[in-house]
Amino acid sequence: LTSKLPKVGTTIFTVMSALAAEKGAVNLGQGFPDFDCDPQLVNAVTSAMQRGLNQYPPMAGVPVLREAVAAKLAALYGRSYDAGSEITITAGATQAIITIILAVVHPGDEVIVLEPCYDSYVPNIELAGGTVVRVPLTPGTFRPDFDKISAAISPKTRAIIVNSPHNPSATVWSQADMRRLQDILAPTDILLISDEVYEHMVFDADQGQLHQSAARFAGLAARAFIVSSFGKTYHVTGWKVGYVAAPAALTAEFRKVHQFNVFTVNTPVQHGLAAYMADDRPYLDLPALYQRKRDLFRTGLQNTRFRLLPSEGSYFQCVDISAVSDLGEADFCQWLTTEIGVAAIPLSAFYGDGFDQRVVRFCFAKKDQTLHLALERLAKL
Amino acid sequence: LTSKLPKVGTTIFTVMSALAAEKGAVNLGQGFPDFDCDPQLVNAVTSAMQRGLNQYPPMAGVPVLREAVAAKLAALYGRSYDAGSEITITAGATQAIITIILAVVHPGDEVIVLEPCYDSYVPNIELAGGTVVRVPLTPGTFRPDFDKISAAISPKTRAIIVNSPHNPSATVWSQADMRRLQDILAPTDILLISDEVYEHMVFDADQGQLHQSAARFAGLAARAFIVSSFGKTYHVTGWKVGYVAAPAALTAEFRKVHQFNVFTVNTPVQHGLAAYMADDRPYLDLPALYQRKRDLFRTGLQNTRFRLLPSEGSYFQCVDISAVSDLGEADFCQWLTTEIGVAAIPLSAFYGDGFDQRVVRFCFAKKDQTLHLALERLAKL
Ligand SMILES: CSCCC(=O)C(=O)O
Ligand SMILES: CSCCC(=O)C(=O)O
Repeated sequence: LTSKLPKVGTTIFTVMSALAAEKGAVNLGQGFPDFDCDPQLVNAVTSAMQRGLNQYPPMAGVPVLREAVAAKLAALYGRSYDAGSEITITAGATQAIITIILAVVHPGDEVIVLEPCYDSYVPNIELAGGTVVRVPLTPGTFRPDFDKISAAISPKTRAIIVNSPHNPSATVWSQADMRRLQDILAPTDILLISDEVYEHMVFDADQGQLHQSAARFAGLAARAFIVSSFGKTYHVTGWKVGYVAAPAALTAEFRKVHQFNVFTVNTPVQHGLAAYMADDRPYLDLPALYQRKRDLFRTGLQNTRFRLLPSEGSYFQCVDISAVSDLGEADFCQWLTTEIGVAAIPLSAFYGDGFDQRVVRFCFAKKDQTLHLALERLAKL
Repeated sequence: LTSKLPKVGTTIFTVMSALAAEKGAVNLGQGFPDFDCDPQLVNAVTSAMQRGLNQYPPMAGVPVLREAVAAKLAALYGRSYDAGSEITITAGATQAIITIILAVVHPGDEVIVLEPCYDSYVPNIELAGGTVVRVPLTPGTFRPDFDKISAAISPKTRAIIVNSPHNPSATVWSQADMRRLQDILAPTDILLISDEVYEHMVFDADQGQLHQSAARFAGLAARAFIVSSFGKTYHVTGWKVGYVAAPAALTAEFRKVHQFNVFTVNTPVQHGLAAYMADDRPYLDLPALYQRKRDLFRTGLQNTRFRLLPSEGSYFQCVDISAVSDLGEADFCQWLTTEIGVAAIPLSAFYGDGFDQRVVRFCFAKKDQTLHLALERLAKL
């Protein structure tokens, strides 16, 4: 059997979570909360199951949930999406992204990714027969380099994947960044795949920071698949549910593939989420929750020799390890998990060539006590 | 935007369910039960959510559920699969099948499908860049024609997709059929994709009928991806959960793609299913449940001018419409839904060229009162 993905092993998140479990380490590697969701959300899903909502929902998702998403996008970003023809519920953001890529990337098409990037993008493009065009974010700052992005565009460019708030670097694109992207794409018909799964985790609103969704920019929204995740927003990463918002013509192509990939998504979970979102706007609490955890974690890290990078959004904190260790990132993460009892993710896992800049990523979506325990262990360094 | 799937519209199941809802018709089209699952199963999922099992499960699925599947395959079909390396939980059987195809079909590879076949297979193969080789089942009987299958094999053949019990025809492959397939594949390295989602719905066990899983045949199992569905077995089609069993080397390639498609599957649903399967062996009741419904439905159809085809397995009953109407299958299903108030699926939807043999499919996975109401309406014909 010749592998379709010869360079692919088991995803780093699985590898590090398994090692953390084996070693009894505090798992700040894989991105997921170790605290639970609101019991009201569990009750809402249970109620849907008990009311017998257990058979196939409509292929694109249950209408009430699509309407809740449309209402949110209108309220937060001022763009109205038609719940019928422009919003589709997916089995998580990862399934959304592969489905977009399979739906729009023809063999030989080029797709621009900005490295470091989430580890599914590149194999997704390869499976569609596309060519990956890697553009580095600026080393050190992880800011987009628009000259490099412009230079990477060719007549074969079908799409560009952008992710803000950014995993792994925790940087957030500014309004100026988004406008610049809009200008660059304006004369082209390049599609935008906007991975916004951390949309509700942007910090320092008092200093004017804001999630710059592609939905806010007419010239981007018209060509964008916007992807987000209920799992990350409502602390239920294991429920595997997300959505895609895109103009009707793009959504039509998306759904052709979606219906032959997962067909549709868990019915009671969709009804439960819709009921939960209708009651109030629970995502509004998220920035405060995570900003507090970020600040707690950063304050604690001052007691270590790690150099802290900014954490503007997402639930990640990157640190430069050079003052702490001579090991490469991957070896350091192994060592840290095994010897110090704290798991982290090497940024090299987000680069095709394994580029090692002596930076690792911690996830602070954890109970305060978990963060304190990790900080105690890290303080030994 | 050039479509990747220019010939694909909305899947027939969605179209007919929407029409049935609009017209208030009894929906015997799309295959799903209109009765509910065991409340114990709902309780088991609720309990998992309440115990806080709401974050990412292991990528391949929660171990207890994989072990329950392995135990079932050993008990029913006498083959032991390693739960760690040979069983993967999927977001339904459809996601399992596209993931297998993306994992093993290289551009230019040929994949044999036996028509009529489920409507996702062909677009799945096309998305992988493969070439679809269509072999008709024998017209009238829907039996496999092994001479035609042999003749369709070429050096480029990567895989063959087999589906028994068969959707839409409700035929079941015999032990002799499976042995014949095994002999044909023996000198090749062709992979078998065995879609066994109706495995627990084989009728007339007293006459020796039995589900002939590929797992029973060593020469097939060694090259097979066996796909099944918890949704169909436990009356929860909307939960979207299935599995793939395959030898470790095949599973390794499968998981490379799976982790970058859905990554993993709803955690509390997996725990709930595992707990439910541990208590007894609830799938053992399925043949009796559906055989009774099949018999009720067939008896009622004697009062119509439909000619009944055999229903050996699955929850489908096909009928020849020629004595009832001059319309083509698709128009007849439209008319039947709109004018008579009963939705059915035209078999032409399962053929690439829309072949019309005057046969339509009813789903009898319905409450007795639903079947009685449908029969009352059909008796007018
Ligand atoms: C799909 S597991 C990985 C979770 C995640 O998004 C991350 O850790 O970056
Ligand atoms: C995925 S909806 C279709 C359900 C089904 O398997 C069928 O009706 O054939």
